[in-house]
Amino acid sequence: MTSRKAPTMKDVAKEAGVALGTVSKVINGIPVSEKNRLKVEAAIRALNYEVNTYARGLKTQKSNLVALIIPNTTNPFFAAFTDHIEAALYKRGLRLLLCCADGIPQKEIDYLNMAANNKVDGIIALTYSDIGKFIPPSLPIVVFDRFFENRVIPRVASDNFSGGCLAVEKLLEFGCRHPIYIRFHSVFPGESDKRRDGYLYACEKYGLTPDYIDEVDTDDALSIMKDFIRKHRRPDNSLTFDGVFSHTDYHGYMFYQLLLSEGVRVPQDVQIIGFDGIRKFGNRQDDLFISSICQPVEQLAEKCVEILTSEDSVTPPSLTLLPAYYQYGGTTRDPAALR
Amino acid sequence: MTSRKAPTMKDVAKEAGVALGTVSKVINGIPVSEKNRLKVEAAIRALNYEVNTYARGLKTQKSNLVALIIPNTTNPFFAAFTDHIEAALYKRGLRLLLCCADGIPQKEIDYLNMAANNKVDGIIALTYSDIGKFIPPSLPIVVFDRFFENRVIPRVASDNFSGGCLAVEKLLEFGCRHPIYIRFHSVFPGESDKRRDGYLYACEKYGLTPDYIDEVDTDDALSIMKDFIRKHRRPDNSLTFDGVFSHTDYHGYMFYQLLLSEGVRVPQDVQIIGFDGIRKFGNRQDDLFISSICQPVEQLAEKCVEILTSEDSVTPPSLTLLPAYYQYGGTTRDPAALR
Repeated sequence: MTSRKAPTMKDVAKEAGVALGTVSKVINGIPVSEKNRLKVEAAIRALNYEVNTYARGLKTQKSNLVALIIPNTTNPFFAAFTDHIEAALYKRGLRLLLCCADGIPQKEIDYLNMAANNKVDGIIALTYSDIGKFIPPSLPIVVFDRFFENRVIPRVASDNFSGGCLAVEKLLEFGCRHPIYIRFHSVFPGESDKRRDGYLYACEKYGLTPDYIDEVDTDDALSIMKDFIRKHRRPDNSLTFDGVFSHTDYHGYMFYQLLLSEGVRVPQDVQIIGFDGIRKFGNRQDDLFISSICQPVEQLAEKCVEILTSEDSVTPPSLTLLPAYYQYGGTTRDPAALR
Repeated sequence: MTSRKAPTMKDVAKEAGVALGTVSKVINGIPVSEKNRLKVEAAIRALNYEVNTYARGLKTQKSNLVALIIPNTTNPFFAAFTDHIEAALYKRGLRLLLCCADGIPQKEIDYLNMAANNKVDGIIALTYSDIGKFIPPSLPIVVFDRFFENRVIPRVASDNFSGGCLAVEKLLEFGCRHPIYIRFHSVFPGESDKRRDGYLYACEKYGLTPDYIDEVDTDDALSIMKDFIRKHRRPDNSLTFDGVFSHTDYHGYMFYQLLLSEGVRVPQDVQIIGFDGIRKFGNRQDDLFISSICQPVEQLAEKCVEILTSEDSVTPPSLTLLPAYYQYGGTTRDPAALR
């Protein structure tokens, strides 16, 4: 939190060169001329004015609404996360405003403004855009997975580092000697980057030579994978790797289908472990796409809501990590699954 | 709409034996004694009093919120529908309140009450519980797929009958002679029941003998399928059917996996077409679980929002059906897919 005196509405009016009433109208969503609105908004940004300080004490004006900012609900992990957030809020008498913000930062900023104006009580955000600088420090917000620089925003995530280690350890336990790693990642930093760190740490610990695809996410993922496989063929056509830890179930499943189409047997020749634990048709427990390090999505959602709704007097932890767990999904030689 | 005089707040006060102000408080969510609240609520039910008529004219009080009642967001079809509803609302400056009501009718009724109290502007409902009797006739609501008796509620659905016919016609086009039908259905009537009618109509039209599983949805689906397959084995172990139209992609995929595990080749020996067009990882167009009659989910969502937000003066159609379409998903001998 900053120690300099917070700017007031008066400061904003002065900076914008408009009347105080005009600032109030803009803040409260009452129409003013386009010209004046732009002036006020520019002044609010320039001064880093926090609209919500204005009405902060008005606890009777609670909306009982919490906004969830999420890229979409079609991705099965986001879909499950949304479902559990809704249930965790409902238990507490809160309702969920859903914002699917895929690639539309303005949409995310709209919801941040709503929160700043007390139209929602708080925000849970799982975002892959760079909205960090638009988040006022006093806004009730919990961020899933993402990391915003220079801000003390409570974050919740799976323990991705331990999960990355666990993936390698499981592959070794099931007989692999050369586990590779596959990642197509977001350009924004986040907790999930630590899956890679976990892989590298485990390689060092167990004396393995790291070998991986590590690229920014792209529509060319399939051809990059094909190229990787081609370069890892021995003269007798066998592969130099026998295990795959994929950064996500999505790309792990893509790699799985590719291996099958090239005549590689899974899990006999190559075993695959993904990350996320997404289910084909929703919540059924035995419905994984591939063997996976599963995010504990229900507990993660519960923890986000718990932190967001905790008493104001409690300083929330800046980072809360919940353990991920291995589950068999058909692509590992898992003795326990064959019993 | 009823022609008898609508009950007033005064009528409610008289019926409840409380002061008019008490009724107003209950309606506006201001605390009163538990005893009085129960009396007022009972009187509101007894008189079928519509709370929202009270504040109907107050257009300035619009919440700009629309509630979506849906069983869950983990089912891929519901997840896609939710995603498109959110986008269609956002285009119109409206925001989505998400209610995942799976098996909790009280949760659905809570949201209906919110709508009746103008806390939300309207409701889009995809529900498999029997809440029809709780819906006041003047409530802005659009129902997807479900049918409530004795009520003129605008409904939107896919053209399930034509889709059922299309499934059979596609199977015949791709060389099937004996297409069966598999359904595990909800106990509540809905538009999707017409998939069955479409199958039966096509059988009659093309001189086929209908043969099917048609059961209430159950955890025993897999053993019912196994039993069905066993009874359709010829002495030489071949099957008496060569095509499957499944009421949903979900059960079609289950049947597909079962056939594979029993050594049946798909699509060489048996071709399968499902219904819904759900995608494995969300929105990618080439990501079907099985060949399918796809619901046009984006257009369906857009239509629901369009009807809900249409001018009050326009009487919405009581039923709007959008055409479903066939898409190849690996389980049919589709010449176009092999080009």
